[in-house]
Order: sequence, then C-alpha cells, then structure tokens
Amino acid sequence: MASVSAAESLQEEVAQQKALLRDLQNQKADAALIEEAKKKLADLQKSFGLLQSAMKAGGSTKKGRLLLKTPKGTRDYGPSEMHCREFIERTVKDCFTTYGGGCLDTPVFERKDILAGKYGEDAKLIFDLMDQGGEQLALRYDHTVPLARYLAMNGAQATQAKLWQVGKVYRRDNPVISKGRMREFSQADFDIAGIWDVMIPDAELISLLCTILSKLDVGEFTVKINHRKILDGIFEVCGVPADKIRTISSAVDKLDKSPWSEVKHEMTETKGLDPAVADRIGEYVKHKGGPELLETLKADAALMANPSAKAGIEEMAILFGYLKSYKPKKKAKKAQTGQDEEDEEIDESTVGVGSIAAGGRYDNLVGMFTAAAAGESKKAAQLPCVGVSIGLDRVFAIVWPRWVSKGMRSKETMAYVMSAGDGLLNERVELAQELRANGIKVSGTWFSLCSAALANSRGQTDFLFKAKPKLPAQFAAGERDEVPFAIILGETELKEGLVTVKEQYWELVDGKKQKIESADKGVKVKRADLVQWLKDRPIMKDWDSGRFL
Amino acid sequence: MASVSAAESLQEEVAQQKALLRDLQNQKADAALIEEAKKKLADLQKSFGLLQSAMKAGGSTKKGRLLLKTPKGTRDYGPSEMHCREFIERTVKDCFTTYGGGCLDTPVFERKDILAGKYGEDAKLIFDLMDQGGEQLALRYDHTVPLARYLAMNGAQATQAKLWQVGKVYRRDNPVISKGRMREFSQADFDIAGIWDVMIPDAELISLLCTILSKLDVGEFTVKINHRKILDGIFEVCGVPADKIRTISSAVDKLDKSPWSEVKHEMTETKGLDPAVADRIGEYVKHKGGPELLETLKADAALMANPSAKAGIEEMAILFGYLKSYKPKKKAKKAQTGQDEEDEEIDESTVGVGSIAAGGRYDNLVGMFTAAAAGESKKAAQLPCVGVSIGLDRVFAIVWPRWVSKGMRSKETMAYVMSAGDGLLNERVELAQELRANGIKVSGTWFSLCSAALANSRGQTDFLFKAKPKLPAQFAAGERDEVPFAIILGETELKEGLVTVKEQYWELVDGKKQKIESADKGVKVKRADLVQWLKDRPIMKDWDSGRFL
Repeated sequence: MASVSAAESLQEEVAQQKALLRDLQNQKADAALIEEAKKKLADLQKSFGLLQSAMKAGGSTKKGRLLLKTPKGTRDYGPSEMHCREFIERTVKDCFTTYGGGCLDTPVFERKDILAGKYGEDAKLIFDLMDQGGEQLALRYDHTVPLARYLAMNGAQATQAKLWQVGKVYRRDNPVISKGRMREFSQADFDIAGIWDVMIPDAELISLLCTILSKLDVGEFTVKINHRKILDGIFEVCGVPADKIRTISSAVDKLDKSPWSEVKHEMTETKGLDPAVADRIGEYVKHKGGPELLETLKADAALMANPSAKAGIEEMAILFGYLKSYKPKKKAKKAQTGQDEEDEEIDESTVGVGSIAAGGRYDNLVGMFTAAAAGESKKAAQLPCVGVSIGLDRVFAIVWPRWVSKGMRSKETMAYVMSAGDGLLNERVELAQELRANGIKVSGTWFSLCSAALANSRGQTDFLFKAKPKLPAQFAAGERDEVPFAIILGETELKEGLVTVKEQYWELVDGKKQKIESADKGVKVKRADLVQWLKDRPIMKDWDSGRFL
Repeated sequence: MASVSAAESLQEEVAQQKALLRDLQNQKADAALIEEAKKKLADLQKSFGLLQSAMKAGGSTKKGRLLLKTPKGTRDYGPSEMHCREFIERTVKDCFTTYGGGCLDTPVFERKDILAGKYGEDAKLIFDLMDQGGEQLALRYDHTVPLARYLAMNGAQATQAKLWQVGKVYRRDNPVISKGRMREFSQADFDIAGIWDVMIPDAELISLLCTILSKLDVGEFTVKINHRKILDGIFEVCGVPADKIRTISSAVDKLDKSPWSEVKHEMTETKGLDPAVADRIGEYVKHKGGPELLETLKADAALMANPSAKAGIEEMAILFGYLKSYKPKKKAKKAQTGQDEEDEEIDESTVGVGSIAAGGRYDNLVGMFTAAAAGESKKAAQLPCVGVSIGLDRVFAIVWPRWVSKGMRSKETMAYVMSAGDGLLNERVELAQELRANGIKVSGTWFSLCSAALANSRGQTDFLFKAKPKLPAQFAAGERDEVPFAIILGETELKEGLVTVKEQYWELVDGKKQKIESADKGVKVKRADLVQWLKDRPIMKDWDSGRFL
C-alpha cells in the first residue's frame, strides 16, 4: 500500500519535472538550469525504475520504502538559492521600511472561521489542519485576511497603520514550479489602513511597487490599473442588468489571458448576456493606454453622464497627477481586472512568469470582522484599507536564472584560513576568531543599489575541521565557496610574525566558473596588520560596491 | 454550538492571561509590560462577559459570534515587537554567515512518514494536516528532521555542509506564553555535517552559540556540556543493567529541574533500579565544574578503567583545549543531560526563561533516511551531524522587556515631511521621494555590535496622506513614530529655496517617553542642501552608532 502511493507520487513528480524541463527548453533558459533540470529528471526516473522493479520482484514490497521528497508543490531552497532569496527579501524589507512601514507577523494558521467566506469558490484550496481536539485550524491563504483580523482586534491603535508582512502562504492549487506557482509560497505585503484623502495611499503603493521591482531588476514591467467605479459605470452604460454585473465583471477579468472572442462567448452563451450589450462592452475594453486614455473617456458623453464612471475617471486623473510627483520609473497602463474581495482598484504587474504582484482596496473586510465579533445587532466602524502583495517566488523565478548566468557567488565567506605546516589547528582557530570578531568595516558605497541588502558583516571566515589537514584539501574547500582570500599559516613564518595571503577570484568563462589567481605563491603579510591589510584590498572594496553580487 | 466553543476558548484565554500577569508580577517585570498585560486581561474578561450575557439572553445565540483571536498558543507580533524580533533575527543570521554557514529553507510541512518515529512519545505533539486527498502531511516539529531529509536527498553534494535555518516550528504543547513557550515558535539552527576530526565542529558550535548570546546581550548564561560516552561509562561502572541504561539516562536528564531525591525515587521505585546502584550514580552526578572537573574524573581509577568513560573524558579534554583557542566569553560548566535522538553530546543554555538553546549530535539520522529510502536490504552510508538550535521566542522574552524599559524606538522612520502652507502635497511627495531615494550613507561604526543588524538604509521618510492637513495633525503623526526630523514646507520659503527642519528626540523620564526639542521654531536649511545637511546631523550619526537602538 505505502509503496503503491509512493510510486504514484513519484510518477507525478516525474511528469512535473518533465514539464519543467520542457518549459525551460522552450524559454531557451540558461544551459546550467537546463542541465540541473535534466539531472533531477534522471534521478527521479531512476528512483521510479528501482521502485517499480522492487514492487514487481516482491509482488508488492512488504515494507514500503520511504519516499524522500518534499510534499507536492513545495521545495527546498539550498544555500545558493537562499543567498539569492535573502537578497530579494532584504531588498523588499528595506523598501518597506523606507516607505515608513512597520512589520507585522501573524501565525501561519488561523481559526477556520476567520478564513471562512473570504475566498469564494477558491475556499477549496485552503489547507485544513486535522481536528486533534481543540480549535479548527487552517493554514493562511494570504496575508490580507490575517491582517484584517489583526486590525479588527487592535482597531483603536491601528486606525492609521502602514504595515508590512513577509512570509509564506498556502494554497492547494495545481503547482507549476517553473513559473514559481507553488502550494507553499512567499508573499511580501504592504498595506495602508485608515481614512485618508482619495488616491494618496494608492499612489504611494504604486510608487513603492515600482521602486521595489526596479531595485530587484526584474526587467521591463507594466503596472495595470483599474478603477471599479469606471468598470461599474461602463457596465451600466452598456446596459448590463444589475444582477449580472458581478459575473460579467469576472468574465472581463479573463481578458488578460483569453482573447475577446472567448470572453464574449462566456458572457453571452454561459452567462446569458444580450450580445448587443456584450459588443458595447467590447468597444470599451479594447482601450489601452496611460493618462491620455482619460481624455478619450472624458470625451465620451454617454460615459460621463454616468455618475459612477464620472467619479472614477476624475479619481483616476487625481491618481495620475500624484504619480507625476512620485516620478515612477515606468508608465502605468490602464486595464480592467478585478477580484472578489477587493472593490475599488487593482494594480497588477505582469512579466514573463505571469503577474508577480497584485493589490487593491478592501474597504469592508476589517468592518466585517468587527461586526461579526460584536454580534449581528451592532454596526461596526469601517476601516478602509489598500494594499499590494508581491509574489517572492515569481520574483525569484526571474532573478535566479540571471544570477546563475552571471556566475554570482553563492556564499559570503571572505577568508579561508589554512595551514601549510603541522596542522596548527589552534593557530587557525585563533586567526579565524580574530577575523570573525573584527569584521572589516565597509568604507565604500554600502547604500548602493545591490550591496545594501547584503552588506552586513565582512568577518566571514572559515577553516577545515581537521587537526592535520593537507594543504590541497584546504584549498579545495576554500575554492568550493569561491573564497577570495586564502590565508596560509606556516610554523616558521608564524614565529617571524608573518602569514601568507593568496588572492583569488572567479570569472565566468564560456559558461564555466574559472579561478583567476596571481602567478606568485602569495604575499607575506604581518600577522598583526592582517585585518587592516584585508580591509584595504581592492577585492574587499569591490565586494562592498556590489561587484561580487 | 459555535458560541459555546467560543466561550470555552475565551475562558481559557482569560485563565492564560491571568497566569501571565501573575508571572510578570512575581518576576517584578517592567511596569509597562504589567500594564499591557492588565489591559489585555480586562479586554478578554469584557468579551467573555458580553458573550456570556448574550448566550443567557438567547438561551444560546442563534448565530455564534465570531471569536477574534489567534489560535491557542500562537500570537501576533505588532510593529514594535517585530522591530525587536527583526533585530534578533538579523544578529543571529549575521553570526551564522560569519561562521561560514549557508542558508537552507525547507517547507513548513513534511510528508507524515518523514516525521514518523523520530520523536518518541512526543509524536503526539505533531500538528497533522487534514487528509484532503493526496499526501498525508504534518507541520514540522523542528529543523533537524527536515535538514536530515534534505541531506539524505542531496547526499553527494552535502557531505561537508555548514547549514543554517531560521523559521517557525510547531508543537501541540501546553503553551506558557510568559516564558516564550508557544505552539508556533521560531528556531534558529546551525548544523555541521560531515566526517571531521573529533570535537572540532562541536567546539565551533559552542563558540558560535556564545558569540550569538553575547551579541544579543541576553545576560549571564551557562553552557552545559555532556558527553554521552562519559554518561554511559558511569552507568556501566555503577552497575546499571544494559536494558535500563536508556530509561535511567532519561531520569538523569531531569536533574536540571528536580532534586536528586526525586530522580532517585523515579530510578528505584518507578524504574526498578537497585538502590545501591542509584546511590553510586548519585555520587557522580553531584559533580559540577569546568575543565578542572576532568582532573577529578581522571583520578577515578574505576571510571578510567571503563573504555567508554575513558574515551569520553579524553575527548572532553580535547574539546576544552580547542575552546581555549576560541576564547569563548563564558566558562563552560559540565552537566549531564540527554535527548532521544542525540547520542553524543548536548549543550544547553539556561536563563530566567529556562533553556534558550540546545544542541547535540545526531550521527545516525541521515543514514536512517538513506537506508529507508534505499530499501531494507541495503546498507547506507552514515553522515554524522552536530547542530545547535536557538529558541528565538525565548530570546525575545528576555530582550524585549529590556527594550521597553530602555525606551527603544519602535520604528526606523527618520524624517517626517509636513506642510505649514496650503497642503503642498506634490511638494511633500517630491521631497519624501528624494529623501527615500538618496538615503543617507552610514559614515560611522556600522559594524558595531548593535547597529550592524539594523543599519540598512537611512532614507526612511513619511508624510501624512491628506491633501490639506493641519500642521498639528502632521506633528502628532510624526511624534507617534518618534521621528527625529520634522521637515516643514512653506510656500514662501520654498520659493526662496528653503525648508524648515525641527529636530526632536525622546527620552525616558520616570518611565514615560518625553519629547526633547529645541526652544526655537527650527532651522532654515537650503532645500538643495537638505540631504547632506541631514547626513551631517549628530542625531543621524548617533543612530548609526546604535544610540537609538
């Protein structure tokens, strides 16, 4: 039994890995990535083969083999990948604090009744915990509902909050690993609560999003902005019956992925909309553009006669006005999208992997919680909110292949202490500890774009955990981490107060990392001056300026 | 039904909060913390009262009210607390990388069969996920088992790995919130895998632990070190039958919390050990001390005649020799403790809140996984590992009250841009964006103990999201975050190219935060020179040196 389900599980993994490989090949991804994917596929197929022959041999194995894998739709991130992910996370967090946000951390699971009724038909994707006596719990689906629960619980203190959250959320969705769509994934949210003047928080969030995406260097991106009031106005003007507005709105949402003909078919055939009405909608949703599109809409007398559309268009003009002061890096394009819980405005950024960020208003959610907690008879105060959420796995899916192709280092270790003599373990330990404790102060442009996120300490030092290691083994260990300074201790030299330092660095030559080193046997440096000497080396300064990132 | 279980849940919360308050009062904790706990208790009691009267009124309410709370044994961390937690986490991560570690991230849940059989009788504390079709999953219980699973899956690449993990783990234990014992809690682990010379990785980990605890300034701490070989030798010398060694060993573990008389009672009455044997054990476990204790043990002929004890004592001498080179801050004390999965050595640090870190060897775990995956017939290679795990919630429980009593800032916002004139929203946005983008380079000792962890960017700037706000409202918003620079824009001044800057800072006076400001109305600064002017202010330099931490 156990091994049958193991075999099924493994078969599925093989299929997934095949799909990933196909995707990578179609995308003409980096050769190293494709190699890695091929290797993993071969490993999986080998395991599957072994398992099948084992099952055949024994009819079915008596004792199922343990299947060594992470759960479906999840994965481990090893040191090289985490080096990149930590960079992404720190960059995002730094932007969040720069924009005046405070951090919030909520539990990874919530009481089931907190999540209930918030996600429409997607509720089936919620991971429930087993009822083990006590509360009914489920893993959080996003950061928005936990935040709203927190705001409802701490209403009085949080009426004017800028809060950010970075953490994992969970959905029992069909994973597409190559696109960064996982069952466990990391989201970075920034939310603004409170009653503020119209469009100011919205502009702040769009600016924040553009700043982050630019700093992360995800490449070209488009921020699509929608105003629910305009969309509602369009539907009214086109003659959509009131009871169909919601369902037609969700059809329009699909325009991002499907052509108009399909969307129209859904409207008229599946949802019973009059084809003439659908055609009128078709005219409006064809529009695409920036602030200049507002002029086209303003010239549309029928639309401007509709109070909702008029208000929406005026507010959008205010937003574009503010965005000029923010000087966002990219021009914003207008488009219509929408989500169940959000009711005024959605912005969404799309890149090769699909959209990597989305956001919008949820003006009623906190009030819903407050009212439900107070009992049905009471009216609770509303707390309007607007927020944006960045999918960190999708960002990683864009940034990581670039790191690989640039040959980025995967570790920060700066010095590797070795001995040429008789072990000298105590001497190696003492020097490693001295370097670690002293660190090396950053003298350069630590606030520069990239290095800020990683410029934490420069004392990273390692040595081999052997009492009497051979020199080549020590060099090999240091080279594995591409450590720029090999510091070699020798008995005679130490008595003279000297150590030998050999500088080395790696460059990508024809897609392969190649070590560049000086022809000499290294430089002799006074042991007492070593910390300062290291600080003054160009390699150390280069690192500070982001060169080794 | 729903409201009955809500009432029970709430009643439990009230009891928990009462216990917390009592603990705080007994510990003579900081007044602000006690006030906070009292307030929360009052809130909970009020909700409970309301709920009870609602239930009485309706016999039982038809529609249960929503209970706004986090699940049992979990909590939210708001911005002030997260400011402190982020500092702790960054400090720990920086030490981890300084010691040459690479980061690993595993999913928050694992396949149930990965966790099965690893935790003995504590398996009942594992949080299971509901079977929703697919794999049987459970939340991770610690970082060790997922790491071992990862190492078994990536064996070939990871035979010489130094890996760290920071993240949440889950146990359905009885929470004691005041001591930082939660059902969801954060652990920071550092592990060394590979076949190394004896005691070198162990010494490295003890040094790492002492460095981290000293940097976090948790106060006095003791690292207790045990060697399983010595303990096994003692048991053999005292005459413990082979089949009782494990159970007697777990009784000895309790000496940390219980007096010898109780432990002896358990050994003889519950576990049927000969009282004479117990008395002999009693003589050995009384010993406490540092390296000098080894001399006492070496003088014990009976013990030294036992091969296991002799080997353990010799290895312990090697360890103490290495620790001298590491120059740890504190002297290590010897004591006996032990855990099921670990088989050679345990170090454990105890502070007011109980132990805040623990570690040890698990030389067989990775091999167990490899063997189970390969099938019963095959022998798998072992991968010895040793690791240490720091309980971040317990560290927080120590550090946070000190932050509160020192009046630490809870946000990093450095500048608040205001207008004295007619709104000047666009001008405020432009200035805020300029400050955010420029940041202010760190010129001081950024690598100094505390500031390193938070010295990320200095561009943190905010403004009020109102088109035409009143000046007092803007000052109040800036003061809420204790922002040191109030930057005031005026229409006439701006035309002259000037802005007004008012410096302010807060001090703790009689336990209350008090704003200190100059008597003047602020300084006029050239708009064009503002960034540089701010960089040069002593307050900004103070912050860089850790003053505002």
